[in-house]
Amino acid sequence: MRISELARSAGLSVATVKYYIREGLLPAGVRSAPNQAEYGDEHLRRLRLIRTLRTVAGLDIGRIRRVVAAIEDDSLSRHAVFGVVEQVQAREPSAEADADARANEEVDGFIEELGWHVRPDAAARKELADILTALRGLGRQYGTEVFRPYAAAADRMASWEVAQIPPSEPRSVAVERMVVGTVVFGAVFDALRRLAHEHHSGATERDGPGKARSANR
Amino acid sequence: MRISELARSAGLSVATVKYYIREGLLPAGVRSAPNQAEYGDEHLRRLRLIRTLRTVAGLDIGRIRRVVAAIEDDSLSRHAVFGVVEQVQAREPSAEADADARANEEVDGFIEELGWHVRPDAAARKELADILTALRGLGRQYGTEVFRPYAAAADRMASWEVAQIPPSEPRSVAVERMVVGTVVFGAVFDALRRLAHEHHSGATERDGPGKARSANR
Repeated sequence: MRISELARSAGLSVATVKYYIREGLLPAGVRSAPNQAEYGDEHLRRLRLIRTLRTVAGLDIGRIRRVVAAIEDDSLSRHAVFGVVEQVQAREPSAEADADARANEEVDGFIEELGWHVRPDAAARKELADILTALRGLGRQYGTEVFRPYAAAADRMASWEVAQIPPSEPRSVAVERMVVGTVVFGAVFDALRRLAHEHHSGATERDGPGKARSANR
Repeated sequence: MRISELARSAGLSVATVKYYIREGLLPAGVRSAPNQAEYGDEHLRRLRLIRTLRTVAGLDIGRIRRVVAAIEDDSLSRHAVFGVVEQVQAREPSAEADADARANEEVDGFIEELGWHVRPDAAARKELADILTALRGLGRQYGTEVFRPYAAAADRMASWEVAQIPPSEPRSVAVERMVVGTVVFGAVFDALRRLAHEHHSGATERDGPGKARSANR
């Protein structure tokens, strides 16, 4: 298809599609005439992926470029792609957030205790240490044990999610599903948790504690 | 204490503290001399809360003001405060995200099926509809059933979290714990889920599927 049709199918302007090509997010089309190129379904799929990463995950162009490069790099294992996806989802470090050295060590110890194998420089380690420091700033004597119920839930969820992608799936399909799954269903869970809070707090006020109606037991 | 001591204890500059007072995030101190005011522990606690909402949750001043107003408004039930906290965590609507009417209806039907009581205008409903639309744009025939395992996990987590705050707790303490709990532990879960993905994907590659070592079963 021509670039105009590609753009229309993806719900984007031609200018945006050209911008993504210049930025290296999308391979150029195959030149079919001096001033014309042909694009295929893989271009359309890539554009929809980019759009999802922008609109659902709010990733900026630089982070999307890193994801796309990881998807395209066949030398990266699926595990390594998860590492890249982990890193691009890092929160912008705030000037005010500043974990003390002790918090960093405690978080590393906690992850070791869980038996999780993750890169020493995973961004999420620093985020947890910053959070621990912030919680202590609120005047309570928090330790990493407050993370434990969340680690158990994350472990169950991630184990199930990783198992959704069979190892037999071709790498190109698998890594795209991983990226979408991690980023998009993180947003899904966040939205549902907020709704569930509202429901359960309301149920407590309506019926007294422990009486929240729940469809998911 | 004086404003200089308050600022130092909160790890902020005096200018920032004055800015928060002007913006209505922090009540003014009690005037003790023509050019001097006294601040108490409740000011310090409030500043630390603001700092946590900024650094951990990344909320802007306008959203923090809405949270603070809800905390201070004794006429709002705890349930109503959860509604405000739900709303301020809404993702910025992207110009590109645009759920079709059908997706909005499907999400409403899904939440009704769950038996959850949440405001018709909860921001998370629209977010889920946008996500559903984006997933379909990726070329797969997704329905709301893909949300179901996440709804079950969110239901369990929220039910447990709401129960952590006993109804006997004074409102002022309870609502602050709710705000911190919702916002901060959402970030905790997000970070842990990313780490757990990395661990489980690695375990699959190391040991074959189904062999991920897990400390949380």
